[in-house]
Amino acid sequence: MNRPDGRQNDEMRELTFTPNVAPHASGSVLVSFGNTRVICAATIEESVPGWMRYQKVEGGWLTAEYSMLPYSTHDRKRRDISSGKLDGRSSEIQRLIGRSLRAVVDLKKLGSRTIWLDCDVLQADGGTRTASITGGCVAISIAINKLMSAGKLNDFPMKSLIAAISCGVYEDEVVLDLNYPEDKAATVDSNLVMTENLSFVEMQMSGEEATFTDEQMAQMIALGKKGVSEIVVKQREAILAADKAGPADLQDLAAAFGR
Amino acid sequence: MNRPDGRQNDEMRELTFTPNVAPHASGSVLVSFGNTRVICAATIEESVPGWMRYQKVEGGWLTAEYSMLPYSTHDRKRRDISSGKLDGRSSEIQRLIGRSLRAVVDLKKLGSRTIWLDCDVLQADGGTRTASITGGCVAISIAINKLMSAGKLNDFPMKSLIAAISCGVYEDEVVLDLNYPEDKAATVDSNLVMTENLSFVEMQMSGEEATFTDEQMAQMIALGKKGVSEIVVKQREAILAADKAGPADLQDLAAAFGR
Amino acid sequence: MNRPDGRQNDEMRELTFTPNVAPHASGSVLVSFGNTRVICAATIEESVPGWMRYQKVEGGWLTAEYSMLPYSTHDRKRRDISSGKLDGRSSEIQRLIGRSLRAVVDLKKLGSRTIWLDCDVLQADGGTRTASITGGCVAISIAINKLMSAGKLNDFPMKSLIAAISCGVYEDEVVLDLNYPEDKAATVDSNLVMTENLSFVEMQMSGEEATFTDEQMAQMIALGKKGVSEIVVKQREAILAADKAGPADLQDLAAAFGR
Amino acid sequence: MNRPDGRQNDEMRELTFTPNVAPHASGSVLVSFGNTRVICAATIEESVPGWMRYQKVEGGWLTAEYSMLPYSTHDRKRRDISSGKLDGRSSEIQRLIGRSLRAVVDLKKLGSRTIWLDCDVLQADGGTRTASITGGCVAISIAINKLMSAGKLNDFPMKSLIAAISCGVYEDEVVLDLNYPEDKAATVDSNLVMTENLSFVEMQMSGEEATFTDEQMAQMIALGKKGVSEIVVKQREAILAADKAGPADLQDLAAAFGR
Amino acid sequence: MNRPDGRQNDEMRELTFTPNVAPHASGSVLVSFGNTRVICAATIEESVPGWMRYQKVEGGWLTAEYSMLPYSTHDRKRRDISSGKLDGRSSEIQRLIGRSLRAVVDLKKLGSRTIWLDCDVLQADGGTRTASITGGCVAISIAINKLMSAGKLNDFPMKSLIAAISCGVYEDEVVLDLNYPEDKAATVDSNLVMTENLSFVEMQMSGEEATFTDEQMAQMIALGKKGVSEIVVKQREAILAADKAGPADLQDLAAAFGR
Amino acid sequence: MNRPDGRQNDEMRELTFTPNVAPHASGSVLVSFGNTRVICAATIEESVPGWMRYQKVEGGWLTAEYSMLPYSTHDRKRRDISSGKLDGRSSEIQRLIGRSLRAVVDLKKLGSRTIWLDCDVLQADGGTRTASITGGCVAISIAINKLMSAGKLNDFPMKSLIAAISCGVYEDEVVLDLNYPEDKAATVDSNLVMTENLSFVEMQMSGEEATFTDEQMAQMIALGKKGVSEIVVKQREAILAADKAGPADLQDLAAAFGR
Repeated sequence: MNRPDGRQNDEMRELTFTPNVAPHASGSVLVSFGNTRVICAATIEESVPGWMRYQKVEGGWLTAEYSMLPYSTHDRKRRDISSGKLDGRSSEIQRLIGRSLRAVVDLKKLGSRTIWLDCDVLQADGGTRTASITGGCVAISIAINKLMSAGKLNDFPMKSLIAAISCGVYEDEVVLDLNYPEDKAATVDSNLVMTENLSFVEMQMSGEEATFTDEQMAQMIALGKKGVSEIVVKQREAILAADKAGPADLQDLAAAFGR
Repeated sequence: MNRPDGRQNDEMRELTFTPNVAPHASGSVLVSFGNTRVICAATIEESVPGWMRYQKVEGGWLTAEYSMLPYSTHDRKRRDISSGKLDGRSSEIQRLIGRSLRAVVDLKKLGSRTIWLDCDVLQADGGTRTASITGGCVAISIAINKLMSAGKLNDFPMKSLIAAISCGVYEDEVVLDLNYPEDKAATVDSNLVMTENLSFVEMQMSGEEATFTDEQMAQMIALGKKGVSEIVVKQREAILAADKAGPADLQDLAAAFGR
Repeated sequence: MNRPDGRQNDEMRELTFTPNVAPHASGSVLVSFGNTRVICAATIEESVPGWMRYQKVEGGWLTAEYSMLPYSTHDRKRRDISSGKLDGRSSEIQRLIGRSLRAVVDLKKLGSRTIWLDCDVLQADGGTRTASITGGCVAISIAINKLMSAGKLNDFPMKSLIAAISCGVYEDEVVLDLNYPEDKAATVDSNLVMTENLSFVEMQMSGEEATFTDEQMAQMIALGKKGVSEIVVKQREAILAADKAGPADLQDLAAAFGR
Repeated sequence: MNRPDGRQNDEMRELTFTPNVAPHASGSVLVSFGNTRVICAATIEESVPGWMRYQKVEGGWLTAEYSMLPYSTHDRKRRDISSGKLDGRSSEIQRLIGRSLRAVVDLKKLGSRTIWLDCDVLQADGGTRTASITGGCVAISIAINKLMSAGKLNDFPMKSLIAAISCGVYEDEVVLDLNYPEDKAATVDSNLVMTENLSFVEMQMSGEEATFTDEQMAQMIALGKKGVSEIVVKQREAILAADKAGPADLQDLAAAFGR
Repeated sequence: MNRPDGRQNDEMRELTFTPNVAPHASGSVLVSFGNTRVICAATIEESVPGWMRYQKVEGGWLTAEYSMLPYSTHDRKRRDISSGKLDGRSSEIQRLIGRSLRAVVDLKKLGSRTIWLDCDVLQADGGTRTASITGGCVAISIAINKLMSAGKLNDFPMKSLIAAISCGVYEDEVVLDLNYPEDKAATVDSNLVMTENLSFVEMQMSGEEATFTDEQMAQMIALGKKGVSEIVVKQREAILAADKAGPADLQDLAAAFGR
Repeated sequence: MNRPDGRQNDEMRELTFTPNVAPHASGSVLVSFGNTRVICAATIEESVPGWMRYQKVEGGWLTAEYSMLPYSTHDRKRRDISSGKLDGRSSEIQRLIGRSLRAVVDLKKLGSRTIWLDCDVLQADGGTRTASITGGCVAISIAINKLMSAGKLNDFPMKSLIAAISCGVYEDEVVLDLNYPEDKAATVDSNLVMTENLSFVEMQMSGEEATFTDEQMAQMIALGKKGVSEIVVKQREAILAADKAGPADLQDLAAAFGR
């Protein structure tokens, strides 16, 4: 076993959450899996998309946008607006993020509101989409807690926490939470999204000009479950901490961001 | 058990391939899974994308484009060019198609060429992305056979056939090859892409505002394998038939299209 | 006289109509003039464009979209969405198609509806715009017949059949229905659109870096009239056949498409 | 006979040319047919489009762009850049202008150059496309004369003058050079483009939700020939005047523009 | 002192206004500062932008669009629509024009209307943005006078005339109203916008890869004030002349434009 | 005197620099003026823009991009890519940032390189453009120091530090460094950009539907000079600190970012 950074095959990178980094959002967090860092911010809009009004769908909506900041990659990544169109990969990722989060939010209970979840990658080192889902869950939870505190919701609309992690086959071994060098060399890449009780929400496995077997699939799923069960513990802590801090503390947290 | 069209849970819709429907392409086929019909056409360009020349990557490339014709859906679907941007769903699907096919084509052996695989949905009744991969494999095989016959390739670059099928959880039962009404009502939706010897190339499972269990996952995989093993038999026949027909027969086949 | 495919100067290519190739449309047909094949599909939307509502114009609207499928040409044609803008030639052609068809549909009698006519070229071998008008007339007639059968219209809104054909000056002779090699070499190119009683709806004659005389114009008009009078007989047959077939037969026709 | 502005059916509006209104262009003219005014400017670029270099086509190129200034119409016309796409009508018109002018310029003799012809409508009162071709011919002639004077061309590349005029059926009578109110009410609208010896370059006749007969067509052609023969006399005068004025006089002419 | 065109350092180029050059606009003028010529046209729309209706802001709005015609520069300038996006420089300039004019128009008194100010550069020789503001003031004044005459306004909404002029540091000397060769060589470039009583509305000074001192700033301001006080005299005359002419004279003025 | 946050009229908000927040950039800093926070990141590209190569301009280039993150404002700001075009205000600001920085970088000494300066606003509370210039100077200095250390530059290309600050007229008093509530209520708004020895690089003063006097202008300039002289001291410290830290410390600093 020789992972580039010396981790065990079933070992995640260090995971941290820094809540409230974007004080103008309803809920925000800087999530990091090792050197992968993503700003996740949830903002609440007190209206729903046109198609819901048109089709008279009751309840609310949740949508996600994902973007890599130009300086998040080793070579500067051109902004979407410069090339005039949304990056195909970004489009695919933000659809996955939105779909995943909608699986754990009861949109009916949300009322006639839209949650916008923005995920901006500050530093990319593998696993930005799973980090976005994982951090997005925290940002949304903080935002919903605020709505609850403000008496704007009757029922708590989150059905469960949700977390995501990547697995893959790297140098013929199944490993957890690939960083960029591992991801680039992996022959199989998977993204697993699960609720806090380890039910599946989404599972994507993809051979990179290669195929994979039932056994490899089973191993990746096992590793993924291990990862998610570790993540949800930290998510809960982060949400609780942000919640306790309360709106008055936002200033302090923002100051901390600058240190 | 009560599927809307009376099929068994493990029963695919009728699958047909009509080769050479677009005679100006190098290889083409109209694939149908029941009422889902997709035109798949492979064209060969004797050059590679700019990034490959720039990075001096050897070999060739394969890329896919997917589009729903405006009259393929019950309500007319607006063209991408009218809204000014590629539909997010289409973008995601064409990335999947391209990635899947690249897993079974040895790009080095292809030489300095690009295969463009166009998949245009003529009638959408569920499973258009899996039909595109399945039909795309046939179209590409026909095109590559022509390159071989013309003496433009030394080694046969296809490593395996590839086929895809959808499974899902419909009214609490796991079923194969969902049509549109089933797909709309399903709580879990999966797309399985495998080689002819049933190795996985890609697997996507997604809860639609719902979750799924290990057992459901296992059942979907079993059904998917059954489906793929039936598909590859028919793919082989279709490729052989098109091959036997030979370039001289293109005219006849095209005429048949019009009947 | 030596036309590349041996036809007489006043001889059209074989013309066929295959109705109902796109069952989700209200009316559809695959029209072929020799190797030129176009899918024409009419869909009905139960509303009118914003500008009609705004200006309180009574009645309905008819609009056309024309596109060449990427594999319809010898060299793959890039999709409009890839270049980010509608091809100028396509824009010109779809304006011609819409204008022509509106000349024979009484929009007042149509009621507050929009007919979308989509023309997608499957194989291009000269004359795609005239084939689109010719096939479009059949597709629209089928769609309107369905509206009549369903009791949604009081008066039959079609004032006449409409058909189009190209003429040109090829190797100094005036010829009918140019195929691609002829079109490329022609010094004068014309498109004639007429009603079933041979009144003109639209006439476009264009010297390709050349000019033309009154006599050539007269000859082209004479040939065009001959062509249109042959076409309308076949249009009538096709509409009648599709009509007799009735909605129940759609399945069968679609199956035929796959043969 | 009762044309809104009291003209005879075969009477053109007053036609004037003011050369050199855009001194930075190689050749320019403000052309007016009554209240329709169009700035036509030809600029020379000492290179050819990419596709010509790529296909190694010898000689030069000529391309036209047509645009209505926002204040040219009774209700302000939104700029193309604001709506994000080129107006379909403008696209069609500029293709017509370019095609027409290319019919009378020997591109081989032009050398490896591009002539850009810009036509910007200052005031629209019917017939802007025919005014653009008519004025464009003058602008290009001035520009080519300058190239000749500067010794940059061996052979004079213009094969003929070219002019255009509209005809139509207004209140059941065939009339020449329709202004906007006539154009709006006309049942048939035609645009005729001819060389100085009255050979046809382009002819477009179009029924506006109406049809037309052989006789009407013949009458429109006769009127068009009368119009064009009057126009070419004035074109010749304008080109001669601009030519005599010579580059030194540009300043004066520009000053005149401001009076 | 050696300015390329022999002017004194504090001497403006010849300034002329030709009103009513675009008769379909409510107010229009061709303004020229030497060889810099800009068409300024104000059109009135009897509604306000969506955001004002949405936010229930009372009164009217004024917005400006600035564009260089392709033949206004020595090398042809590509149209924005060809490159698919608004030129950054144009965007900046039209924001400046709109902001400046809004400073002297009492939007409340304008009523629920939008003034569109279009500035199209016919010939660019330095100072097009200041010419646009200066000419724009005249165009808007004419348009507002017409609204007053038509009894559509209760109170005169213009608070003051407004004019703009450029200054700069050219060959180490502070000069007024730079033409293009001066502008290109200047180390400091400034644009001063003032009301008729010489209050500042906007001031922009910019070192071109250079810096500037307090003294140079003071000198530029002094020159700017001299320039503006000369301009407003001519603006007043132009507005008065256009006003006296009255709507009946529009035709004559337009004819003059063509001479 | 009653500024909303109790500051003296000539008192800046707390200014902090957190270097190296984006470790993949060559130089980066999170700059904050009170609650306004901007990520400034400089990346080096070892090539120059196409127009420089084409025109054979020697030396390097520096360009800036400015964007507000969606959650930086009280109401979520739509991404540029969603509306399909660059925000006019952003375009104007990024032109100002680039122009300012180019005034203090000797592009010849930079060699054939491009510095991309990205400024992404994390939290907007007034003065984001001046914060971007101020932080941008630090980011670029860090990046250039690294090029020097790596021996890639012969001469140090920065001619001076550069800093920017806003002033304005708020409740009839001239104040320094306006926050958002002050900025919104201000009648005059100015942005001053100066070198470390207080030479002007750029000065923009703008009346918001108001005008300003010579005296107010003088006062704003005096306050601006005070502000800039305080800023440059802190810039120097920040650059020095980042420099001492050295590349090895990047990890630590990034970790600090997450606290």
